Amino acid sequence: MKIVLIGAGGDIGMAVRRELEPRHDLITAGRTSGDIRVDMADMASVRAMYAETGPVDAVVSAAGNVHFGLLPEFTEETFMLGLKDKVMGQVNLVLAGLEVLNDNGSFTLTSGVLDRDPVRMGAGAATANGALGGFVVGAAIEMPRGLRINVVSPGILDVSVPRYGAWFPGHVPVPSDRVGLAYAKSVEGAVTGQVIIVE
Amino acid sequence: MKIVLIGAGGDIGMAVRRELEPRHDLITAGRTSGDIRVDMADMASVRAMYAETGPVDAVVSAAGNVHFGLLPEFTEETFMLGLKDKVMGQVNLVLAGLEVLNDNGSFTLTSGVLDRDPVRMGAGAATANGALGGFVVGAAIEMPRGLRINVVSPGILDVSVPRYGAWFPGHVPVPSDRVGLAYAKSVEGAVTGQVIIVE
Repeated sequence: MKIVLIGAGGDIGMAVRRELEPRHDLITAGRTSGDIRVDMADMASVRAMYAETGPVDAVVSAAGNVHFGLLPEFTEETFMLGLKDKVMGQVNLVLAGLEVLNDNGSFTLTSGVLDRDPVRMGAGAATANGALGGFVVGAAIEMPRGLRINVVSPGILDVSVPRYGAWFPGHVPVPSDRVGLAYAKSVEGAVTGQVIIVE
Repeated sequence: MKIVLIGAGGDIGMAVRRELEPRHDLITAGRTSGDIRVDMADMASVRAMYAETGPVDAVVSAAGNVHFGLLPEFTEETFMLGLKDKVMGQVNLVLAGLEVLNDNGSFTLTSGVLDRDPVRMGAGAATANGALGGFVVGAAIEMPRGLRINVVSPGILDVSVPRYGAWFPGHVPVPSDRVGLAYAKSVEGAVTGQVIIVE
């Protein structure tokens, strides 16, 4: 398959790449690295990315920013960051991608554990994750031409623990290869409208 | 208790009012009706509302707009409506309300059925509903002074069927009095961080 992977440079993106690259033709895209530069929160930038890739069989997003902060210190602006970037950015990939995907293609988005296993300072992330879960449920039933859509919701990755572990007390790290497999399930499998949990 | 109810004029708001008004001191607020006019998507308007109510024991929101439309016809702008109004509006009520609620007070927000039982044209609503579910899970663990937060997620109300029933084929309407009870559970009960489903 021809697959565009957004956020290939992050911990999740690298796990996806290791899993999918041996069997597929991967185009990487990202804000600061990858074959194509894209800011998914900017619809014009997303459209420009697709103009460059041409038709693809799968879109995989492992990207999306949220603000972490104590609840009483959130402002409307810092809270909106997750809604604009992690949520609307990934939704933009889908809205603009509906006409770019080949028949029976798939979208695979990324959320995370914090809407089911919350941590201090994670209310913005929990909100974004829940939104993406709702989106794939709602969008899956309207997908044209056999297209599918899922979101992978991993716990904190083993490789991310040195940087982020202190924010996730007691969370069991998830092996990166299992995270990669979840994306293979979405891309190569047949499920749609699913939140694919990796724990 | 002294309770401010935002969106008192809608079908859900009226069900909440019927349930809570006999036992509590209700202040109603809304965009176009109620004791106080408020646009919850505007943080300044929310702060002005709280300046008028003074300290309260509970904040109940039965408000929030989303755009309904076929998935391929959503634009970034129409999709963002639900994130800005239904999600950020209700989050604004919480962020600004943290210092307004009396000790052991509660926030009760409203989502809906579409992130677990989707309908055509409902992807924006499903996303907003999922976001609110994630928010209460994430926010509940950071609530100060014994404050609680829940979201009620009702199916389509019996009284709403004449106007909206055609968009919800096969959905079993929920009796309005049962919807009112869910808000009583959140306001008068002890649970927190819950998505209170009414089906």
